[in-house]
Amino acid sequence: MLEKTTRMNYLYDFYQSLLTPKQRSYMSLYYLDDFSLGEIAEEYDVSRQAVYDNIKRTEAMLEEYEEKLLLFQKFQERSKLLVKMKEMLKGDNPINETIIETVAELEKLD
Amino acid sequence: MLEKTTRMNYLYDFYQSLLTPKQRSYMSLYYLDDFSLGEIAEEYDVSRQAVYDNIKRTEAMLEEYEEKLLLFQKFQERSKLLVKMKEMLKGDNPINETIIETVAELEKLD
Repeated sequence: MLEKTTRMNYLYDFYQSLLTPKQRSYMSLYYLDDFSLGEIAEEYDVSRQAVYDNIKRTEAMLEEYEEKLLLFQKFQERSKLLVKMKEMLKGDNPINETIIETVAELEKLD
Repeated sequence: MLEKTTRMNYLYDFYQSLLTPKQRSYMSLYYLDDFSLGEIAEEYDVSRQAVYDNIKRTEAMLEEYEEKLLLFQKFQERSKLLVKMKEMLKGDNPINETIIETVAELEKLD
């Protein structure tokens, strides 16, 4: 569950601009502010089921966007390469060739 | 006009997965294969106006996606930083601190 929450937080971060204001409100209360479904329902004066359905649909939309655009996946790959690059630059004699190869890998990600 | 074509080619490249198959066909014939509106209309047995309207709507959608997700803009910024990094790595004594700063700028883009 925690893993799913982390993933949803990331997907929400990448794709929130494509959601409606209501979807954004529910998702942000549920995933960022840790409100329960019941609390959100009360806040918006709708049924718990309505909130649940909306959040489920939004989660599916976020996964669909990720399937199409891969922003989260590419972000993770880029992060790994940048960490690697920083490690290489820490040494006294960083090998330029290896860093250049990492730059090339970064370019391929776009 | 050429500038617009280049921009549309890039936006299409980044966001084509979010378009319908018909939108993709028209856009790819018009922008990648350089078909005229009349030629596309003939190919699909629809009016020239219908093709024109569809392409105009799709162009607006692509600009809207770019406004929301900034994939093209970030791609350009990342490219510049990677070119800069490669330049720095070409020298005999690349200054690690400057490269590390560039890595930090790259990280901020995500």
